[in-house]
Amino acid sequence: MNLQHPYLMFLGDVQDQLAAKTCDGIVHWRPEWSLGQFRLPNCKADVKLDDMTLTEGLEKGAKTLLIGIVNQGGFLPEHWTASIVEALQRGYDVASGLHAKLGDIPEIAMAAEKYGRRLFDVRHPSATFEPGTGVKRAGKRCLAVGTDCSVGKMYTPLAMEKEMIARDMKVSFRATGQTGIFIAGTGVSVDAVVSDFISGAVEQICPANDPDHWDLIEGQGSLFHPSYAGVTLGLTHGAQPDALVLCHEPTRTHMRGLPNQKLPDLQTCLELNLAVARLTNVDAKFIGVAINTANLESNKAETYLAEVEQLLGLPTVDPVRTGVVRLVDNLLNI
Amino acid sequence: MNLQHPYLMFLGDVQDQLAAKTCDGIVHWRPEWSLGQFRLPNCKADVKLDDMTLTEGLEKGAKTLLIGIVNQGGFLPEHWTASIVEALQRGYDVASGLHAKLGDIPEIAMAAEKYGRRLFDVRHPSATFEPGTGVKRAGKRCLAVGTDCSVGKMYTPLAMEKEMIARDMKVSFRATGQTGIFIAGTGVSVDAVVSDFISGAVEQICPANDPDHWDLIEGQGSLFHPSYAGVTLGLTHGAQPDALVLCHEPTRTHMRGLPNQKLPDLQTCLELNLAVARLTNVDAKFIGVAINTANLESNKAETYLAEVEQLLGLPTVDPVRTGVVRLVDNLLNI
Repeated sequence: MNLQHPYLMFLGDVQDQLAAKTCDGIVHWRPEWSLGQFRLPNCKADVKLDDMTLTEGLEKGAKTLLIGIVNQGGFLPEHWTASIVEALQRGYDVASGLHAKLGDIPEIAMAAEKYGRRLFDVRHPSATFEPGTGVKRAGKRCLAVGTDCSVGKMYTPLAMEKEMIARDMKVSFRATGQTGIFIAGTGVSVDAVVSDFISGAVEQICPANDPDHWDLIEGQGSLFHPSYAGVTLGLTHGAQPDALVLCHEPTRTHMRGLPNQKLPDLQTCLELNLAVARLTNVDAKFIGVAINTANLESNKAETYLAEVEQLLGLPTVDPVRTGVVRLVDNLLNI
Repeated sequence: MNLQHPYLMFLGDVQDQLAAKTCDGIVHWRPEWSLGQFRLPNCKADVKLDDMTLTEGLEKGAKTLLIGIVNQGGFLPEHWTASIVEALQRGYDVASGLHAKLGDIPEIAMAAEKYGRRLFDVRHPSATFEPGTGVKRAGKRCLAVGTDCSVGKMYTPLAMEKEMIARDMKVSFRATGQTGIFIAGTGVSVDAVVSDFISGAVEQICPANDPDHWDLIEGQGSLFHPSYAGVTLGLTHGAQPDALVLCHEPTRTHMRGLPNQKLPDLQTCLELNLAVARLTNVDAKFIGVAINTANLESNKAETYLAEVEQLLGLPTVDPVRTGVVRLVDNLLNI
């Protein structure tokens, strides 16, 4: 899966900004790939790109029409089909992050075939995988792990990638979820891989590399999430991380989606992640902590970061509030 | 997935007994469901059942033709298709443990449709699953875990089931792999479930039950196997085990399939399994150890069992050599 950029963002006629959060993320991290937005009448979202028709997008060089919206159920509204078919006819590839597969809609499948364009359903792995081997490979890897889902395990490696590119280091962000795949242009939704191949799929997306090259691997789930811990463990074993970053959101009162499941304390979370990571990399170590303090006031955030830093003895940052310079500095010690 | 029994075992023309090991397991654990064997000319395997034609099997009450053989690649030999089509025509359901799907072979799919019979590909989950919830449910559950793959995580719960049935206890063996599914007549190959749904699939196969009912859940993989640990963790969280049995094969020199990966020591294996099991059941505890001592001489086996018993402070048995009475006795303490 290799998405061609730049992207024209298709927002359809979604009714609020939250539905466009995937596009917001892409625009934030890949402004240079985000050419414009194509909206249907009555669309209530705006990702702050120039509005373009399909024709205008093509003229400006767009390669892929990107359906980066979310809705309950992950379906493709029927009245969007005509726009997608037209895009294929005009010469776009089409990529979707919806659960529904583009190729399952006959008009879309036929148009892709007829006009020789590619369809990408980034939630659905298209490659076949082998079971993981656990065999050490060249290059260095850093994996984001966390206390819960949605606590910064994509944001943190992307912030680190930006800092490392600025320092002219050899670095690749490795995507394991749909938004990450749009941002990287490639990757695998590991939670959609058949269980037998989780670690193997991850080995495949961050293969052997130069000894001084860093893969920064997007994390998924949490070892402490009863729904998704299996994904997290397979991801960790496949990543063979030299470095781990612990991600956390301090105002979360329970595990995402599970009102009765408490979050682990940071020390317990760190210890279990380290123990399991060492199965495939005996030298794995934590290089820092990334806290999302968006829900804390400024002075409380500073106090909290200082407390965690003292508790765990690791550089503790908020990637938004303080940046990730100290995480990258500490990565250099490995 | 509910297989109708008794089974007529289809051995085709496999060239050695090892190819029939799935059938051997079914005959061992479900002799009352194993009506006969149907072999093609030049078959070199024999599962010690009466040879029968398809017609003779039907006359004696067979309901399902069971393709319980294994081969490299898991394909269905082309020259077996005619026998399968004939079975469907005569009124059998057909169940296969091969990787290749019965329904992907047009003649077989059409015959099933035409004659209104069912095809079961037990390696391929046919149900849809929800993510696991971790919410406690009624009834008691015992899960087999282990140091590696193929160390007794199916055999041990089946031996315990037999003992518990003899004691008139409420008990169900819950299958999570292909041979287990043939033996239980139902179940899910959890390693073939999409990663997001591992724990949810397991919650589904051992649902709420009577407070004094025991589910004995077949284990898979190992938390210490770099290829499959994700499966094991999701299985553990979905099982919410009250009781765990630790399975081990003492002559194994490396993890199955991975020559460079050592087995964990028993104490480490026990501790990590207990730590992760407690995420969804704070009262989880080990009730015993099951060692496969088949590769040890009798006196060495006895010494080894005694050593492990002293090391871990748990009843330690070999399900074949000593039986599992002491495991079931200890289960009663929960």
